[in-house]
Amino acid sequence: MIISINQLTAPLVERLVEEAPQLRLAVARQDNGVRIVDAGIQVAGGIEAGRRIAEICLGGLGRVSLVPAGADAAWAWELAVSTAQPVLACLGSQYAGWILVHGEGKGSFFAMGSGPGRALAYKEELFREMGYRDTAASTCLVLETDKTPPLPLLDKIADQCGIPPESLTLILTPTSSLAGSVQVVARVLEVALHKAHFLGFPLDHIVDGMGTAPVCPPAPDFLTAMGRTNDAILFGSRVHLFVSGEQAAAEDLARRLPSEASADYGQPFAQVFKAADHDFYKIDPLLFAPAQVTVTCLTTGRSFRAGQLNADLLERSFT
Amino acid sequence: MIISINQLTAPLVERLVEEAPQLRLAVARQDNGVRIVDAGIQVAGGIEAGRRIAEICLGGLGRVSLVPAGADAAWAWELAVSTAQPVLACLGSQYAGWILVHGEGKGSFFAMGSGPGRALAYKEELFREMGYRDTAASTCLVLETDKTPPLPLLDKIADQCGIPPESLTLILTPTSSLAGSVQVVARVLEVALHKAHFLGFPLDHIVDGMGTAPVCPPAPDFLTAMGRTNDAILFGSRVHLFVSGEQAAAEDLARRLPSEASADYGQPFAQVFKAADHDFYKIDPLLFAPAQVTVTCLTTGRSFRAGQLNADLLERSFT
Amino acid sequence: MIISINQLTAPLVERLVEEAPQLRLAVARQDNGVRIVDAGIQVAGGIEAGRRIAEICLGGLGRVSLVPAGADAAWAWELAVSTAQPVLACLGSQYAGWILVHGEGKGSFFAMGSGPGRALAYKEELFREMGYRDTAASTCLVLETDKTPPLPLLDKIADQCGIPPESLTLILTPTSSLAGSVQVVARVLEVALHKAHFLGFPLDHIVDGMGTAPVCPPAPDFLTAMGRTNDAILFGSRVHLFVSGEQAAAEDLARRLPSEASADYGQPFAQVFKAADHDFYKIDPLLFAPAQVTVTCLTTGRSFRAGQLNADLLERSFT
Repeated sequence: MIISINQLTAPLVERLVEEAPQLRLAVARQDNGVRIVDAGIQVAGGIEAGRRIAEICLGGLGRVSLVPAGADAAWAWELAVSTAQPVLACLGSQYAGWILVHGEGKGSFFAMGSGPGRALAYKEELFREMGYRDTAASTCLVLETDKTPPLPLLDKIADQCGIPPESLTLILTPTSSLAGSVQVVARVLEVALHKAHFLGFPLDHIVDGMGTAPVCPPAPDFLTAMGRTNDAILFGSRVHLFVSGEQAAAEDLARRLPSEASADYGQPFAQVFKAADHDFYKIDPLLFAPAQVTVTCLTTGRSFRAGQLNADLLERSFT
Repeated sequence: MIISINQLTAPLVERLVEEAPQLRLAVARQDNGVRIVDAGIQVAGGIEAGRRIAEICLGGLGRVSLVPAGADAAWAWELAVSTAQPVLACLGSQYAGWILVHGEGKGSFFAMGSGPGRALAYKEELFREMGYRDTAASTCLVLETDKTPPLPLLDKIADQCGIPPESLTLILTPTSSLAGSVQVVARVLEVALHKAHFLGFPLDHIVDGMGTAPVCPPAPDFLTAMGRTNDAILFGSRVHLFVSGEQAAAEDLARRLPSEASADYGQPFAQVFKAADHDFYKIDPLLFAPAQVTVTCLTTGRSFRAGQLNADLLERSFT
Repeated sequence: MIISINQLTAPLVERLVEEAPQLRLAVARQDNGVRIVDAGIQVAGGIEAGRRIAEICLGGLGRVSLVPAGADAAWAWELAVSTAQPVLACLGSQYAGWILVHGEGKGSFFAMGSGPGRALAYKEELFREMGYRDTAASTCLVLETDKTPPLPLLDKIADQCGIPPESLTLILTPTSSLAGSVQVVARVLEVALHKAHFLGFPLDHIVDGMGTAPVCPPAPDFLTAMGRTNDAILFGSRVHLFVSGEQAAAEDLARRLPSEASADYGQPFAQVFKAADHDFYKIDPLLFAPAQVTVTCLTTGRSFRAGQLNADLLERSFT
């Protein structure tokens, strides 16, 4: 495997840091040398910052565009995501799959790490399945958090990535910030691939794909903000996958992939989360999925569509 | 303030000049050394030239994309505008706020200057309000005109920008040219911010935003051409602003911001202009506004929508 | 004429080759030194690869964007094409006008050459009409084929371009591949210009334009795949041209330009092709045209619209 998502991403990170003033980001070195990019804690950040961070999350293999939706759309802007290699970009980099935890109870820190650093640390089973491991001299992770991770955790991350702390950049995007909501909604394609994987569809049969989901208005309250980023995908997104393999598998994937195929479908996500006692693990994992799906079977040329946009639930969530 | 919109814009201007042949622009030095880029007087220019000039107007902080509108749109192409910093990009640079005048009566010259040069000249009250003044070794202005400004005016502009004439570039875009109509329609977000400012909404509460408006067909007649560029925004545009501060102020802004909130709303702009004896100052300033508006209050997460697209008036204007 | 489409394209080709691993392309030198980029024969390629190849086809003068269509669109993704100079980009480069043939009967090779190399070879009457001939030290052609051309043909191409074989790059895009279908659908604007030319509309009156057409699902069967790429344009595309000259000519062009103006309109293209005994030359040349057209006469500012999107025929073709 000759593609290094860390090498592809490095120039995007350097450009983000160079343009931090106009993107309204704050960049600071911690005592141990780790570079922290604040994208919405003490600073304003913004939609363009979020778009850039989303492309960093995609391991330098993807493109995130802010485009106007059709004239009838209640929420008039969408984030369109495409990549050169969806599985490597979305699951190998963008997926927030690295559990980063320090301490317990009050004062503890918890976040999920996203970005190309995951492929250096190689701590997730997913990489073994994908047969992908990266090596690089520097790396980057994106965390959906409003707190700076404690120094010992930063040291540990650098260590597990096999790089000195000064070669590690962490980008922090609070859920309730503009940049934070953008970089989460830009996971629309990743959400589809993750569910396809969960359903047992072979990753090496996913050849290409793209996704689009509405920009959601951020909310100061974490629960509302988090609910909206999920609802943008659950009720407002469209994904197209191109797959190899048997046609029956493609048809089955299309049928099972949309969010509406989950028993937990039907309420804004914040309500589902409350009903599950604020415990993600009590929610049907099949709910985390795009609203509308097309799967094209490259073996036969047939396409299968399922799911639907749900403007009413989107409206209840976003307003 | 460490952002220099002139430094950000300079490479875009140099690239425009380098690519002048394929963009069908003419570049010439005046006797005093000022560089003039003709974008539609003696040359054809075009939509891509206009798009690039629009990004120059935005001070290197913005992105202008030509995107297809929905299948039902009578006018199938839109200019989508987004920026890293809307207030600085749109009001600090793109707004045509510098009155450039030379002589009186026949043979006189009049145009409004747009672009990052305004922030060097620092002649408008707006910059004091924004607390922004730029310094740079070279600069650029964009003028909506079909005449080359007289040499003494060029000298004066350079002088007021504090740079030698050979470091000044003027880009001339006639209203009736393709590039001219594109760069005016690309002011969709600026028009919204300017009206928000006129309504007394605090500029430092405008955190983010984006806008889109249809590409209007140019017309050889100045009045028709000018009318259409306005109508693209008045009847065909959508703007989303994200603001801080009190929710009541966001709600009030949304209600008052659309063009339909003006008493002069209801006719294509060319007719309004004629009815006002061709005097802009007799027209209700509240008319200059986007058609459809969403304002999201970041403090509470609530969004407010007002205004509407008016396909009938757009059709009357564009055909 | 100071624009060299070959010089403009060369960096795009080099970037394609450098990024071949992530674009899933295979690059190899033939024995005579010609560089072959396989974009879908032995390798997966993909949509992003096709998008890049389409921009290479446009001679470095165009932009191809993958954008989501409106929420109601059955086929939710479009390729939007715009250029700085439509005639030179589309007809001078992108048009597949160079007949490349070697041998006869079984084992023979036939393909149509597209890209900036055509303007070096200068073998088509079209270049004399356009008054354009390029000179350059290296070049590139794009071929819609699933076979590597034989060495003698490669030698001949290089010779006719006036360059050594090692300075020639050929990009091979099978019709049934993702990259192949994308690069053909991205011919939407070229198809309009070619028909305008066929109708006798003066090329130097075509000032500007843009087009958009849906991404079609590829099919493993050549006939189905080829049919779909045509149907994307015939039934799903929208083109806007801006022309100089007499208004009557613009109006006439709009009326005659859409695909529905052909007597052969009304069936998916694969069926039309079968009914014509698999002979392109038995099909009405007026059929090769965009679905929906707007022509703006810059001389008078009037616009003329004709044709329509045909969702039913698109659906019959794509599923």
